[in-house]
Amino acid sequence: METFGEGFFEITRDVAGFLDTIKARDGAVLIYLRHTSASLVIQENADADVRTDLVTALRRLAPAHAGWVHEVEGPDDMPAHIKSMLNGVSLQVPVAQGRMALGTWQGVYVAEHRSAPHRREVVLQFMGACAQG
Amino acid sequence: METFGEGFFEITRDVAGFLDTIKARDGAVLIYLRHTSASLVIQENADADVRTDLVTALRRLAPAHAGWVHEVEGPDDMPAHIKSMLNGVSLQVPVAQGRMALGTWQGVYVAEHRSAPHRREVVLQFMGACAQG
Amino acid sequence: METFGEGFFEITRDVAGFLDTIKARDGAVLIYLRHTSASLVIQENADADVRTDLVTALRRLAPAHAGWVHEVEGPDDMPAHIKSMLNGVSLQVPVAQGRMALGTWQGVYVAEHRSAPHRREVVLQFMGACAQG
Repeated sequence: METFGEGFFEITRDVAGFLDTIKARDGAVLIYLRHTSASLVIQENADADVRTDLVTALRRLAPAHAGWVHEVEGPDDMPAHIKSMLNGVSLQVPVAQGRMALGTWQGVYVAEHRSAPHRREVVLQFMGACAQG
Repeated sequence: METFGEGFFEITRDVAGFLDTIKARDGAVLIYLRHTSASLVIQENADADVRTDLVTALRRLAPAHAGWVHEVEGPDDMPAHIKSMLNGVSLQVPVAQGRMALGTWQGVYVAEHRSAPHRREVVLQFMGACAQG
Repeated sequence: METFGEGFFEITRDVAGFLDTIKARDGAVLIYLRHTSASLVIQENADADVRTDLVTALRRLAPAHAGWVHEVEGPDDMPAHIKSMLNGVSLQVPVAQGRMALGTWQGVYVAEHRSAPHRREVVLQFMGACAQG
């Protein structure tokens, strides 16, 4: 997938589409992000202001130009690593009758922590029963 | 389950009871929280002061009245989303011979980040072998 | 495993060795840490400065001598619990053809948050298909 710089990019439909394609029934889906300067987050999918504030919160927790040793990849890189560590890159969601058991207000997001757009690889893996072909 | 406002609520026995009921043997249990303003945490189950300090630490990391855009659901809501993002809502614990492979001092907690009591839904899913009925 | 005080200790090869030993093919590996003052992190395995800055970042987020109630186990203990809560102790990585589907720059680390060396127990569990003996 492509991100457009710092922010939250919803992948809920992509994961649901994957489960449809493989005719998943009951089990769990593992969502795994193969990067160290972005992360996976399950968060509110209603008011977009929440994601705006989440970005602000992460900037406050891991500010740029804060005396980091690792500056070689730009001022946004080390803060991105910190945010990725705090949020994590590995998520599992239960699947029942082919649908993720998300709460009403939950969406699955790739959080991009770099300033520039990036290509990000997400691995989706379902473990459980699938319907007959 | 019901929470009684901000704080940590242990669910270790509930998860263990679920594993007993289904006669789980070897595998892993997925614990999933269907909310965006509470979280799942594995932490010390001995000195209750630790949980008091964890609440304090989260308040410092995500303070109320800190210029958040999303204020419509009250001053405790946006901090709750931030804490939920940092802690996460999806956990997996290995199960051996029917028991979670928790460390001596580990308990499983729902961390409530809203001020008021809330009803919270936790999905438990075991993958692995169960004993004969 | 043994840690040598605060810092990041890579276990990527240990996990890969476990997968080799059991002749794992396709599935997922659950990595679980049985402690509340250390954590599991997937982060950059190239520039060691990144890990130095991650330690610094965690110290800023959870400082010692910050008015914690729980001081009985030393000034580094409560900050260690906070760091463990934020990073987490449970990780799952997809496995394809016997190898973890890690990104190019991803390594798996035990992050020790106590000042002194500690013995830490990591549980590794593979779910999926293994090759014939």
